[in-house]
Amino acid sequence: MTQVRTEDPSLALSELYQPIVGDLSVVEHIFDEEIRSALPFVNDLCGTVRSYRGKMLRPALLLLAGKAAGTMSPELHTLAAVVEMVHMATLVHDDILDEATERRKNPTICALAGNEAAVLLGDYLISHAYHLCSSLDSQYAARRVAATTNTVCEGELLQNYRRGADLSEADYLEIIRRKTASLTSLCCELGATYSGAPDASVSALRAYGTSLGMAFQVVDDVLDVVGERAKVGKTLGRDFDLGKLTMPTIHCLAHADEETVGQIMSIVSVESTRSNGKLLRWLEATDSIHYSRSVAERFADEAVQALAPLPTSDAKTSLIALAEFTVRRPL
Amino acid sequence: MTQVRTEDPSLALSELYQPIVGDLSVVEHIFDEEIRSALPFVNDLCGTVRSYRGKMLRPALLLLAGKAAGTMSPELHTLAAVVEMVHMATLVHDDILDEATERRKNPTICALAGNEAAVLLGDYLISHAYHLCSSLDSQYAARRVAATTNTVCEGELLQNYRRGADLSEADYLEIIRRKTASLTSLCCELGATYSGAPDASVSALRAYGTSLGMAFQVVDDVLDVVGERAKVGKTLGRDFDLGKLTMPTIHCLAHADEETVGQIMSIVSVESTRSNGKLLRWLEATDSIHYSRSVAERFADEAVQALAPLPTSDAKTSLIALAEFTVRRPL
Repeated sequence: MTQVRTEDPSLALSELYQPIVGDLSVVEHIFDEEIRSALPFVNDLCGTVRSYRGKMLRPALLLLAGKAAGTMSPELHTLAAVVEMVHMATLVHDDILDEATERRKNPTICALAGNEAAVLLGDYLISHAYHLCSSLDSQYAARRVAATTNTVCEGELLQNYRRGADLSEADYLEIIRRKTASLTSLCCELGATYSGAPDASVSALRAYGTSLGMAFQVVDDVLDVVGERAKVGKTLGRDFDLGKLTMPTIHCLAHADEETVGQIMSIVSVESTRSNGKLLRWLEATDSIHYSRSVAERFADEAVQALAPLPTSDAKTSLIALAEFTVRRPL
Repeated sequence: MTQVRTEDPSLALSELYQPIVGDLSVVEHIFDEEIRSALPFVNDLCGTVRSYRGKMLRPALLLLAGKAAGTMSPELHTLAAVVEMVHMATLVHDDILDEATERRKNPTICALAGNEAAVLLGDYLISHAYHLCSSLDSQYAARRVAATTNTVCEGELLQNYRRGADLSEADYLEIIRRKTASLTSLCCELGATYSGAPDASVSALRAYGTSLGMAFQVVDDVLDVVGERAKVGKTLGRDFDLGKLTMPTIHCLAHADEETVGQIMSIVSVESTRSNGKLLRWLEATDSIHYSRSVAERFADEAVQALAPLPTSDAKTSLIALAEFTVRRPL
């Protein structure tokens, strides 16, 4: 895989996004127009949501998949705005669940305007996502988007249901497959489908999107433990303190001594305990961060391999580099 | 208007629903099939949601409108399940906002499984509503449903934004027009449209649905203050204690003496105060319950008048009686 040479992730992304830079501007415009309200305070809240729009990973995946597999079309811009809106809605609702106060160095909606406003603004965004999606000629995308949000919700429900309890690596992977990889997979699938790509390319890109999403979420969960707050731009260590086991802690539990396991589970089983940094020492003792990153790298490799059937193109090169970028985001 | 002769509202409804009783069973079946999950705990939560399904007012409106204006079609059953699912999603999220513990004599999802599960289950229901809607051949209904949920969300956001502050009757009516009447109006509109009714009938039924929704919400807000908990089956007096002004309190504020106004606003401006029954005495002093019911009756009359262009039919008779029932629900 190509090494990303810069330390600044936004710089690296702007390089990878080169083939779709104009398209992303169109998507941002469609996004902003769709969520505009006649109520000024709603627009203020939407302005905050706009500030969470960092990587625009999902629209980028959709557009790059379209470019790599077929021909750009206006539907791709619309659908890219749809998937970003779906993602933003999940972020706004996630922040309620995680009791998070900060996202991308901005206050979360729940911190800014209360949990009630956050519930409703998430609903507003998801409603507008479907509204925008239903502006397309056929029902195909709407059906696929809704089937995917069904799956995302089940993943989130499952994660919430298993909070505070032991979790196997297989269960964890099933949760992130539903809550994260299903949406990244859909992005690539819709990008390919609406660019008129042949079925083999659609399948290849769907597989790429699944593996990329898995890699992305594992790294996200690692960053939740060891990231620098200034770089990640959101509250850190929340998963563990909220009783959510993720790849690093699951690996640690499987390899730590009995005493450490007891201490970890006593924190996990109680809601909103502060682990006060002890977690990091435990994870280091079992080499669990290193293990988790190796799992993420395996998924990123699978993502790259899935692209083999596609012809060479700038967009394909970017998709390959994006897999690399996903696992090499600075910790 | 025909007087509903029975004191038992469910008995009265079963009479009014006579023209669509078989259709409602089909709708229930579609509803249950759509939200079925492979995850048993999700099905358990959905079972609780099913217990909130009382009046099935929205599917009934859609089906009766279809029968009154045109010919029944399978799309009407699907759409009736869609609007009920949208409504259930708003109930589940509303209960979080209202910190309610009881609905239709059953625990709320937030009381049963926590606010997190309630946020996610509401999302799951809305996602399935759009999923079901996208099974229809054309995008028309999906577009109209999403445009309406945009409006419902804005209404809820506006209500939440104005909590704890003074509110004019006009502002209140604007909020309930968005959050409640827009959906009942859509039910009647879609029922008429998908029964192949002429434009004049669609307009008439849309107007009926709007007025009926207004009447229904005003009565709901009256029942929140003066209803019997055993009959209403949910936590009472929550609106006022949560700082939400509704028709009775708005009227009271406009007609009470200065001291009472001061006492009311001191309760409204503080989150989650208990008014401990004082409210009822204030409302009686200004005759505000009576005034609110007269407003509801005016909307119910408008609803009935809107039906004038439709030919006589059992379904039309039921729609007329439904307007009557809405304002005469036992207090």
